[in-house]
Amino acid sequence: MKVAAIAAVLSAALAAATNGPIDGPKPRDIGIALFRGWQPMDVFGPIEALWGLGLSQPINIYLIDEDGGTSEIKPLTPFATNSNTSATVLVDYTFASAPPLDVLIVPGGAGTRNQANVQPVIDYVAAVYPSLQYLISVCTGASILARAGVLDGKRATTNKRSWAFVTQFGQRVRWQPKARYVRDRNIWTTSGISAGVDGVLGWIEYVWGSNVSTEVTNVMEWNKVGANDDKFGKLYGLW
Amino acid sequence: MKVAAIAAVLSAALAAATNGPIDGPKPRDIGIALFRGWQPMDVFGPIEALWGLGLSQPINIYLIDEDGGTSEIKPLTPFATNSNTSATVLVDYTFASAPPLDVLIVPGGAGTRNQANVQPVIDYVAAVYPSLQYLISVCTGASILARAGVLDGKRATTNKRSWAFVTQFGQRVRWQPKARYVRDRNIWTTSGISAGVDGVLGWIEYVWGSNVSTEVTNVMEWNKVGANDDKFGKLYGLW
Repeated sequence: MKVAAIAAVLSAALAAATNGPIDGPKPRDIGIALFRGWQPMDVFGPIEALWGLGLSQPINIYLIDEDGGTSEIKPLTPFATNSNTSATVLVDYTFASAPPLDVLIVPGGAGTRNQANVQPVIDYVAAVYPSLQYLISVCTGASILARAGVLDGKRATTNKRSWAFVTQFGQRVRWQPKARYVRDRNIWTTSGISAGVDGVLGWIEYVWGSNVSTEVTNVMEWNKVGANDDKFGKLYGLW
Repeated sequence: MKVAAIAAVLSAALAAATNGPIDGPKPRDIGIALFRGWQPMDVFGPIEALWGLGLSQPINIYLIDEDGGTSEIKPLTPFATNSNTSATVLVDYTFASAPPLDVLIVPGGAGTRNQANVQPVIDYVAAVYPSLQYLISVCTGASILARAGVLDGKRATTNKRSWAFVTQFGQRVRWQPKARYVRDRNIWTTSGISAGVDGVLGWIEYVWGSNVSTEVTNVMEWNKVGANDDKFGKLYGLW
């Protein structure tokens, strides 16, 4: 085989590996697991990308938490400034009443610092993971996955500013400090807050292909960065 | 004056002009005007930035709309895919009951395409603008500002994919196709969806200075782009 032909085959294989789509049935039902003190963009960044995906692919999203009713951004302890930057969303299902899910997204936020506050989400992740096609965490949501034990032996990343807090929960996790997002098998973990959008866009590319992902990115006017294109780990002294 | 001294003075003046903070009282009470069919990140991208601002500065945010109660992302007409990517938030005040505001943020979204759906917001913007310190629009929210007449004679920008739709409402507006966001006097308009975060971060820099803005940007792990750093206008053939 000539060098040019080998290069073409390698190029095609690389394109297939990085630009999807994968074969097989596509995920449709996507849950987002809430708790008091979730980070606004950890939840609504992915929702925006999924909104764009929903224009061309049949999907459903469900907001779920322990109790149903409502869920608020407001942290358990007030800001020192006495600022009130809260917002409250309606929850669609409880963990007990949620329909079967293909995908679960777990956000982070100040609420992850309180073990009792997130214990129901930790238990839910541990229980539901075996039946999921994909599990995605944003930001300090990785601490919930780590506490549920589903990251053991896997590569993962998380919020760079909260690195020490999150990684204490995953002694058996292969934490990646220089990453915007990481895929290991069917689990996608992302760096802090905004990185959730890049991670979900990367996941959309993996599942539905780069044409769909690029369309969603452009609708959002999102300046996408790649899985390894991280500058915040360095800023926070992690590498 | 020596050349080096002149350069130092010019440099200091330029730094003051671009890195703030401005003098005078800082805004504190920030309203976000909703309608059915708002874009998720148009609202929660700015909320995330304001959440970060609230860690160091005393601010309050209020979600307001015509009726109070709840407000949902869900557009007036269903997606062709039968996707359901909706979410619903609790509203804090009606336009009639809202407290005095220093700042109003007006998001865009599919709901702006229906005149009756956004007429209450248009009327509210026209009524409240004279009492505001700042008015900020995200994405097709600029069409609401244009319909309220407050952009007449001013420079402004908007969503690049929806350029023709929005600009039809502002014949007397000096629309800027190559811009991530634009400030003219006390009105800040931003390009599509994600650009709202860059615009709000630019506004935070203007009001509170670059130290505060950079801190918020880094907490968000946001890859910030500047006011003139736009690639989507070109993508959509506007320049």
